[in-house]
Amino acid sequence: MKKIAILGYGNLGRGIECAVKNAPDMELVAVFTRRDPSSVKIQTPAIPVLNAAELDNWVGKIDMLVICGGSATDLPGMTPKYAEKFNVIDTFDTHAKIPEHFANVSAAAKKSGNIAMISVGWDPGMFSVNRVMSASIIPDGKDYTFWGKGVSQGHSDAVRRIEGVKNAKQYTCPVEAALEAVRSGSNPELTTRQKHTREVFVVLKEGADAAYVENAIKTMPNYFDEYDTTVHFIGEDEFNKNHSGLAHGGFVIRSGKTGMNGEHKHIVEYNLKLDSNPEFTTSVVIAYVRAALRMKAEGKTGCFTVLDVPPAYLSTLSDEDLRAHCL
Amino acid sequence: MKKIAILGYGNLGRGIECAVKNAPDMELVAVFTRRDPSSVKIQTPAIPVLNAAELDNWVGKIDMLVICGGSATDLPGMTPKYAEKFNVIDTFDTHAKIPEHFANVSAAAKKSGNIAMISVGWDPGMFSVNRVMSASIIPDGKDYTFWGKGVSQGHSDAVRRIEGVKNAKQYTCPVEAALEAVRSGSNPELTTRQKHTREVFVVLKEGADAAYVENAIKTMPNYFDEYDTTVHFIGEDEFNKNHSGLAHGGFVIRSGKTGMNGEHKHIVEYNLKLDSNPEFTTSVVIAYVRAALRMKAEGKTGCFTVLDVPPAYLSTLSDEDLRAHCL
Repeated sequence: MKKIAILGYGNLGRGIECAVKNAPDMELVAVFTRRDPSSVKIQTPAIPVLNAAELDNWVGKIDMLVICGGSATDLPGMTPKYAEKFNVIDTFDTHAKIPEHFANVSAAAKKSGNIAMISVGWDPGMFSVNRVMSASIIPDGKDYTFWGKGVSQGHSDAVRRIEGVKNAKQYTCPVEAALEAVRSGSNPELTTRQKHTREVFVVLKEGADAAYVENAIKTMPNYFDEYDTTVHFIGEDEFNKNHSGLAHGGFVIRSGKTGMNGEHKHIVEYNLKLDSNPEFTTSVVIAYVRAALRMKAEGKTGCFTVLDVPPAYLSTLSDEDLRAHCL
Repeated sequence: MKKIAILGYGNLGRGIECAVKNAPDMELVAVFTRRDPSSVKIQTPAIPVLNAAELDNWVGKIDMLVICGGSATDLPGMTPKYAEKFNVIDTFDTHAKIPEHFANVSAAAKKSGNIAMISVGWDPGMFSVNRVMSASIIPDGKDYTFWGKGVSQGHSDAVRRIEGVKNAKQYTCPVEAALEAVRSGSNPELTTRQKHTREVFVVLKEGADAAYVENAIKTMPNYFDEYDTTVHFIGEDEFNKNHSGLAHGGFVIRSGKTGMNGEHKHIVEYNLKLDSNPEFTTSVVIAYVRAALRMKAEGKTGCFTVLDVPPAYLSTLSDEDLRAHCL
């Protein structure tokens, strides 16, 4: 049994706890937090919740430390720091900063002889795997990624910062007509506005100016101004009842041509419909924990991503069983 | 530029010829055939067409020999035989016999220090990759594979052997209601009959008994008796005009649950819509040729399958570019 520890107990930490429970070859040994441990209630009471400062005492006692933090401020510092002492894995998802994060984590892991895996989840993650595989198979083609329908945490946060907003949830929605155009193989050029719409549910503070809030949302640069946005003002009860879920999903579609003169069209589509974004993300993470530990056992050290991992390494089945039953 | 040679010039060989043309890092150096070479007209006239017996003179001059043959009688002998002298790749697709074929090819390739990759394509192939990845991520779930709408060569051949049949084409069709039930996350138990229907287009010989042929098709053990089959009798002109294509496709769907008590459902779907089954299959093969040669350059020898290959190895892009632009 591989010994797994969690650092950071929010939605991702809770998801890892569930995913380890579903993994027959792993056991959770500890949860570490930067908060007061007595304030953190986890789902498996037998497992100790400890202050992150105690991690130094666990060197050599953990096979993999799963770092559950935010990509903006937590992971850039935490993943390289802990890669100096543990095998680590994270869900770093700021696409533009992956090369920098990779370099930092790689240097730390190589120095310590540990293995690290970054940017695991579904985008980056399974979507990346599908983008790379499909583009490699059909070089003469175009990639399309659609997200949703699902909650964007960043956009919800941005709306909550507007004066007069008590609570808010933002859904990113793929435009069905755009999806159908892509699936038809016509390789359309799609603008940002044509691919996704944004739908916002807002609870106003007492006395707030609804027209002001709606305008502030729809014209917000980078977040909303390039999209068709619908704003709904609702009561707090309805908000709590209908908008507390974490469902998400999306589509990666490759549309391209083969033949001596490109005479045959092909559509490759990968899509996800997820009731719980954090639980799916962490289920992906746990499969890549298995892979990372197998790579480590082969002598590999340093930093890797999902693009470096053979599919067989994710499975609990032997290579022989996979060939006999899954190939 | 990697030097690619083709052995066997049917639909797959033609597809490899196209796919190599679309690969910036490969060149076709020769086509080998067991037929009279002067009878084989290929699409790139500058390339020599040679008798398979001449392959002995090409040892050391080819980076990868792509073996394009049938799984029933060609590949079980050919792939191990040529793995003794060349790096080889094939599309062996008799699922039940993969372990035996793997063992034979592996022994030959290890002895010679070559690399071999078998069972590359979309099923086995991309579908296998998706089955293994999705099942590893969501262990508590069920797999569904649907094929079509597309031509089954084996079923078409079986119909052509019936007395009175001049020509025939068999389409395997996924049942839309079954697909929808699976996508709903209800994890239905589906019988063979509920998943696919079969549609057959038949040109009769003069004076043939249509009722006899229809009954012979519908009751044919293993091939048709477990399916709802529709038989259409059509004229030769219509057959040639509308039923000469090689389109195919299919769906791999994983439906499962996560959470401490399985409270969240997830659907992962991979689907293909292919205008040309052989050209897509061979496009997959060429991507795995690239991967196999990279693995060989790392010192690996013996037999591998798609399950052993990291996604990055399929790409012409560097690992750095992939992390920066595709992850």
